[in-house]
Amino acid sequence: MIAGGYTGRILRANLTTKTFAEETLDERLAREYIGGAGFGIYYLYHEVPAKADPLGPENKLIFASGPLCGTDAPCASRMSVTGKSPLTGAVGMAMTGGHFPAELKFAGYDAMIIEGVADEPTYLLIKNGKVLFRNARHLWGMSSFDCQHFIKNELKDEGLRIACIGPAGENLSRLAAIINERHAAGRKGLGAVMGSKNLKAIAVRGDDPVPIADKEAFTKAKTRMLKAMKESPVLYPAFAKLGTPMVVEASWGLGTLPAKNWTATGEWSPNGRIDVESNDKHRVTNEYCYQCPVGCSQLKMVRGGKHKGAVSVPEFESMYCFGSHTGVESLDPIILADRICDELGIDSISAGVTVGFAMELFERGIITAKDTDGLELKFGNGDAMVEMIRKMAMKEGFGALFADGVRAAAERIGGDAGLYAQHVKGLEMPGYDVRGLKAHGLSLATAYTGADHNRGYAFQEVFGIPEPYPVDRFAIEGKGKLTRWNQDARCVTCDCAPMCAFLMDMAVPGIALENTADLVNGVSGLGLTPREVELAGERVNNLAKAFNTREGFTRADDILPARLMTEPIKEGASKGQYIPQEDLDSMLDEYYEDRGWTKDGRLTKGKLEELNLRVVAEELARAGLI
Amino acid sequence: MIAGGYTGRILRANLTTKTFAEETLDERLAREYIGGAGFGIYYLYHEVPAKADPLGPENKLIFASGPLCGTDAPCASRMSVTGKSPLTGAVGMAMTGGHFPAELKFAGYDAMIIEGVADEPTYLLIKNGKVLFRNARHLWGMSSFDCQHFIKNELKDEGLRIACIGPAGENLSRLAAIINERHAAGRKGLGAVMGSKNLKAIAVRGDDPVPIADKEAFTKAKTRMLKAMKESPVLYPAFAKLGTPMVVEASWGLGTLPAKNWTATGEWSPNGRIDVESNDKHRVTNEYCYQCPVGCSQLKMVRGGKHKGAVSVPEFESMYCFGSHTGVESLDPIILADRICDELGIDSISAGVTVGFAMELFERGIITAKDTDGLELKFGNGDAMVEMIRKMAMKEGFGALFADGVRAAAERIGGDAGLYAQHVKGLEMPGYDVRGLKAHGLSLATAYTGADHNRGYAFQEVFGIPEPYPVDRFAIEGKGKLTRWNQDARCVTCDCAPMCAFLMDMAVPGIALENTADLVNGVSGLGLTPREVELAGERVNNLAKAFNTREGFTRADDILPARLMTEPIKEGASKGQYIPQEDLDSMLDEYYEDRGWTKDGRLTKGKLEELNLRVVAEELARAGLI
Repeated sequence: MIAGGYTGRILRANLTTKTFAEETLDERLAREYIGGAGFGIYYLYHEVPAKADPLGPENKLIFASGPLCGTDAPCASRMSVTGKSPLTGAVGMAMTGGHFPAELKFAGYDAMIIEGVADEPTYLLIKNGKVLFRNARHLWGMSSFDCQHFIKNELKDEGLRIACIGPAGENLSRLAAIINERHAAGRKGLGAVMGSKNLKAIAVRGDDPVPIADKEAFTKAKTRMLKAMKESPVLYPAFAKLGTPMVVEASWGLGTLPAKNWTATGEWSPNGRIDVESNDKHRVTNEYCYQCPVGCSQLKMVRGGKHKGAVSVPEFESMYCFGSHTGVESLDPIILADRICDELGIDSISAGVTVGFAMELFERGIITAKDTDGLELKFGNGDAMVEMIRKMAMKEGFGALFADGVRAAAERIGGDAGLYAQHVKGLEMPGYDVRGLKAHGLSLATAYTGADHNRGYAFQEVFGIPEPYPVDRFAIEGKGKLTRWNQDARCVTCDCAPMCAFLMDMAVPGIALENTADLVNGVSGLGLTPREVELAGERVNNLAKAFNTREGFTRADDILPARLMTEPIKEGASKGQYIPQEDLDSMLDEYYEDRGWTKDGRLTKGKLEELNLRVVAEELARAGLI
Repeated sequence: MIAGGYTGRILRANLTTKTFAEETLDERLAREYIGGAGFGIYYLYHEVPAKADPLGPENKLIFASGPLCGTDAPCASRMSVTGKSPLTGAVGMAMTGGHFPAELKFAGYDAMIIEGVADEPTYLLIKNGKVLFRNARHLWGMSSFDCQHFIKNELKDEGLRIACIGPAGENLSRLAAIINERHAAGRKGLGAVMGSKNLKAIAVRGDDPVPIADKEAFTKAKTRMLKAMKESPVLYPAFAKLGTPMVVEASWGLGTLPAKNWTATGEWSPNGRIDVESNDKHRVTNEYCYQCPVGCSQLKMVRGGKHKGAVSVPEFESMYCFGSHTGVESLDPIILADRICDELGIDSISAGVTVGFAMELFERGIITAKDTDGLELKFGNGDAMVEMIRKMAMKEGFGALFADGVRAAAERIGGDAGLYAQHVKGLEMPGYDVRGLKAHGLSLATAYTGADHNRGYAFQEVFGIPEPYPVDRFAIEGKGKLTRWNQDARCVTCDCAPMCAFLMDMAVPGIALENTADLVNGVSGLGLTPREVELAGERVNNLAKAFNTREGFTRADDILPARLMTEPIKEGASKGQYIPQEDLDSMLDEYYEDRGWTKDGRLTKGKLEELNLRVVAEELARAGLI
């Protein structure tokens, strides 16, 4: 029994048999994987067999938070959702925030493992130590917001926190998200996994506080953290007021704001379009996750015109994918598109990138209005964007062709459509033109989830924060090591501990691992060193790599979209930059070496054993994969 | 201090000064007016001066529940909202249900009186004995559902119950509703009064139970009531399963389902269109008000097509106003229209009736597509209906012309447009073609709120329930007396006690007054006789009449729409029926006599004094109005 931080219990619910069991959390698992994505990937690797159909009964979904979640450590109401991704075929892991993660702890669980397939639409109710499998036939088809409302209503409990899918998940769109409150475990199509299991929603409520092992140590760690937050030159002065949309200006300044399906980076300016000033006119209020003193979510509302009154929280990524990426110049359709994605439960980044991809195909004449149910899918057509997203989520008309993202659409369309598809490993590209941010590019190429900015975000390059490595963002050398550190430190700090990624970037970038160790030790009493904490991050990344290896991924998959490797950025502060194969190879060589992997990017027995992953090493060796 | 049922406190909040005060509930007020609409009309009459602008600072809004509300008496979470109606110029009083009414009691108040005008958008927070005036600038423009969500979110309290307005109320549409949860104090434009006061919302939460004066007597009364509910041949076997939409079939059977702006009653059949079977395909689940064992709200969802996933609770009145009245044959746009009305905060009945009115004008060529922003407003065009409602609520384009209902639109359009406007005193007609239900027609003609089915619903005619009067629905004789009883009994039972109207109709129609007396006495210890209870209803109706008299209403206003008085129903079980002036006059004569009013429909000193309304009698006498 661990002294604090953890509830010590893991819930295993089987939808096929409609039974559940409680398991005891192993202290070794806590020490070696900390929580969150660590737990998720641990169970995924060990329980989902190789080559399992992501939308079949063998796949599982693991919801897991970590020791800080549910305590009053700032910004720790975070949770991972892990399963095999139907979009990438690799590890699917997405983080979400809000209140659900903390509530799951209060309900008594560090993690829950969802198995099997229900014979009809079902939702889970987890409350006061009871787990009920409830019929959800009546909720099938409902938007994520309605679904949450009506579950609270029918259970007469407004305090429930609910994670659910919308129509996109039911329709098995491989871009489907899981929505809790108005937050999302958005990427990698985990909403489709939930849909494939006939699981509409999970409602949780609990009253058990999370025990603190060493209150004095915990208070000390918290105090330092809060001080660092207060002293951050960015966090309260800018970020709390502007939220992630402040990155629009920053990225534009760096010449790395992708535009028009990445054809016009550095040319398409956000000024007067989706810039900060325009944001402010639409701003309604800040929203807060549980125990967050920052409230970075900037609630925005359309103030006039035909979409007047539409409300959403469009993050930087939405400004990118529905704005610059599609050439849409008004915030109104951006807000509406963001709202529709949340209601219908489809990942905003992937949906928007897919629309931009379709727009390039349309502009090139590869598809025409005959293929788009008459929609004039030109860059800048915000109404067409909104309608296409709706059709994708509903798999209606031509929406079905694009409902599984750019890679699947390019394959279906054939010809050279794939040249314009912006993705890595099938996951659509997030909003940084990494031709001008090399470490970030390397991270997207190598992250176990595909093109995922949250797995190794190079804040050093974006914000110029010098810790722990001073960097030249165009340089190739050193980016392998930087990326390795970024991936491991972020993994354990943000995805396992867990802690909001923005704190790592803006408050404690130089002391992330020490800070995480102190907080985790305070709540749990585990007594981990900062090095052990870092090793946990490395372990999780290696185990994820092992999963992907078993699925057939190789060095050839650690690649970037064709355009980024062949076409230099034409204008702006990153003009002339691109990442030709030889540059990517240089970075990969350094990265693999720093990881202790082979030159061709394979795991090694030595590294796995060093990370106490002997069983994994043996399995991969038997399969001839190391 | 009354022994139970009442909190004994009334909240008075002034938006101009941002101050509030608590007043003690006078026992005489409780004895003579019981609660709810009684309290509302009492304060309206005594505090809002004659000829006050309904959208000006002199108007007030009184939210009031009654002694049964918040107890475990079944179906008593009801609340009246009262103010001078901007739609009719008469008393505006609308009832709502859900959870807000009970929560207001738990928060400590029998009633709250809202006065003045805030200098900027404001919302009230009433919780734990505190009243806060909070800035609502950021919520202005938001839909009613979003508004409720974000207030809970920013106050970090999911247990709040919130009444608010949507854009229609902000835009001062005289059809604007007040929405709490997904319920509405819908009619008479009280949402515009809230909007005129810059009051976006009222959020309440409380924990004080409602004291019960005589538990034994209360339990006895409840037991009898629950037994009557159980024994009702309609309530559980049909109503709990079908909700109010069951009236579609019933009314069609009577030949009284109005169709195509009342031109095609008896011709336009609901079978295969909006009938019960079709309803069932769309049915999702039942929704329950606080302490309701029935759950008549039938949540419905669009199952396919372009509006797939739209969710709402379209009552019978929505089936009428968005269905038969507009000739729309699919439940899908009906559900969507109902949903949009709730989101934008516009009264569904008035909105739908106004669309049907515009459709007749369009079909007659009085307005053309040039006047309707291109909308083909033909009977049966569900998409045009939905779009017109949105434009009305937003006062966008031609929507502004119709945003204040049929009477105002007819005046603006001029010519003989008024001949096709279905309203009484400016309030649009609800869904009973009263040409075939004479008492119900008389009630609509005389109700203090205008054409309001809830002020004296003639269940005897609709359901053929023989208590207390056996009736021939086509007969003229006896309908004056029946209507007087229906209005008074319903007023005290449903609008003051309060109790859900459906219980009066379906469970205790023959013992309504005795039942109400026993329940009210049980909770309050007031020891009222059934006759005193009935007198309270009569008193409230007379005081409302006094308010309207002071505003200039006379016998000439107790009238029905022109079509009903000149055109017989052409087909069906009410074929040939209409209400010519002489029939209306006969009924009015009997009605006024039974009310103790003069032949020309004026109040009398004698009746007012009999009802202990001496002060009112003196004021009206001074003004030469009696």
